[in-house]
Amino acid sequence: MTRLAITLGDPTGVGPEIVAVTLATASAEVRARTIVFGHRSALAAGAAAMGVAVPADVEVREPGPAGAMVPGAPDLVSARAQVDYLEAAIAAAQAGEVAALVTAPISKTWARKAGLPTPGHTELLAERFGVPQVTMAFYGPRLRVALATVHVPLAQVPTTLDRGRLGVTIAQLHASLRRDLGLATPRVGCAGSTRTPARAACSAPTKALVEPAISDARAAGLDVVGPLIPDAAFRDHAGGAVDALVALYHDQGLIPVKLLDFEEAVNVTLGLPIVRTSPDHGTAYDIAGRGVARATSMRAALDRAVAMLAARAAG
Amino acid sequence: MTRLAITLGDPTGVGPEIVAVTLATASAEVRARTIVFGHRSALAAGAAAMGVAVPADVEVREPGPAGAMVPGAPDLVSARAQVDYLEAAIAAAQAGEVAALVTAPISKTWARKAGLPTPGHTELLAERFGVPQVTMAFYGPRLRVALATVHVPLAQVPTTLDRGRLGVTIAQLHASLRRDLGLATPRVGCAGSTRTPARAACSAPTKALVEPAISDARAAGLDVVGPLIPDAAFRDHAGGAVDALVALYHDQGLIPVKLLDFEEAVNVTLGLPIVRTSPDHGTAYDIAGRGVARATSMRAALDRAVAMLAARAAG
Repeated sequence: MTRLAITLGDPTGVGPEIVAVTLATASAEVRARTIVFGHRSALAAGAAAMGVAVPADVEVREPGPAGAMVPGAPDLVSARAQVDYLEAAIAAAQAGEVAALVTAPISKTWARKAGLPTPGHTELLAERFGVPQVTMAFYGPRLRVALATVHVPLAQVPTTLDRGRLGVTIAQLHASLRRDLGLATPRVGCAGSTRTPARAACSAPTKALVEPAISDARAAGLDVVGPLIPDAAFRDHAGGAVDALVALYHDQGLIPVKLLDFEEAVNVTLGLPIVRTSPDHGTAYDIAGRGVARATSMRAALDRAVAMLAARAAG
Repeated sequence: MTRLAITLGDPTGVGPEIVAVTLATASAEVRARTIVFGHRSALAAGAAAMGVAVPADVEVREPGPAGAMVPGAPDLVSARAQVDYLEAAIAAAQAGEVAALVTAPISKTWARKAGLPTPGHTELLAERFGVPQVTMAFYGPRLRVALATVHVPLAQVPTTLDRGRLGVTIAQLHASLRRDLGLATPRVGCAGSTRTPARAACSAPTKALVEPAISDARAAGLDVVGPLIPDAAFRDHAGGAVDALVALYHDQGLIPVKLLDFEEAVNVTLGLPIVRTSPDHGTAYDIAGRGVARATSMRAALDRAVAMLAARAAG
């Protein structure tokens, strides 16, 4: 049975609380497979805040002695800790000890101050595993959406996207549907962009970009439909028309995900040799340590990772 | 009791069918207030296709003799007819005979061939009523969304929008909530655009554009919040955080509307002296005349117009 890693994230954020609740409510079988990378004292404080016990059957690996860390008050000690947790978990994955990484939220600002060489988790994982392009996707009960661009200002979306990049996004999503969800013949939809006024067709730049990428994917034997009219595509996807959708930019994909799947959506990184999932929220310093954090999304991230490992094992 | 106009739209599209069903299922009180602008023969054919009778108590005004018109086969005769219906209805509105216009779909391509001087209904109404800027909005049971730009390619959204234009959109939406919905103290939200990576804040161009427009509106005494993070804004709006939202561009506003309100959403033109509503679909030539068109959105457009007239009368 393959093992999986959970990183505690920023120990002054809600990470320790949501990890504690997630572990306390997980099955004994899952707990036995899990290694938590983080300080025991932080995890114990999170469990105490949420009124749960730290399960005795979960392995916890500390990267070194814990400094004093106060929920809601990040500093260089907590900044360093979250980077250490992550690096240790990645090392375990590279060593083949774990096959999945479930990451609680880090603070990108503080992680950078502590020397994280990339903007966030996703880019670090891509670098450590030597993968030139990975894809941020959101898997929920109603929608599965992969983003072709991330955090790009609206005006730069058309110039940032190119045929090759979009083609990789489509291929990585398709591969994940087979490998991670066990779908034998997945169908992927690709959204276009804003309609032209005269007819319900896609705009000229979209055609010039999206249609060739779809043709490439089809030539490689993938079942891909599009470019789809965005305002209908997400509804149709929710109705079962396709197994997953590629969105061209952040708002196009995330607005539907937040509307339909909200806390049940899990952030999944596609294109890595390992499984990587994370909850779809940040450190939430404003409520950290108060025992009011919702563990729904972290729990969904763990469940999703376990299911993806099972599909990979069966495939 | 103020009267209202229904235009039949393109008589070779689904207009005659959805208008016939809408009239057949409307109350006698509403029928008595309604004037249909269109050819009787087309309306009768639409009613026959849908298996309903043309109510005897509805006034129908024909712009002239009807030529031969075949559902699904638009030509210059049908093209001319839809423009004539619209011009006659606008003339009745300008004469104060009707206070609301509910418009069945026209074909923009064919209407242009028949000499329509503007891209569509909305622009013609703005021109005829001498209003320099009107706003396309969608009112549904769960969401109310106004678009600050319409049919603009993604890359041009930031350059098309300006502080003044956005300010007018906010003001017209706010005014409609008071006048057309009877809300005494409406709260309007204004979406921003894509998040920056480091924090859940809006991007720099958004701040430079949206924040001043919101400040202007607040200075004028309007209750406006924003710029809101788009992926949360629509969900929060559906949960009651604001009475309506301004979306910066087509996809941002229409994806949520189609997801949550679909056929129940009504296209409303804000900023005109009259009420104007329309269904949120096109001529659907592929199914015209076959008796399978769904009148849900046309019926919602009529109901919405009646409700807006009532709110204006009470205001």
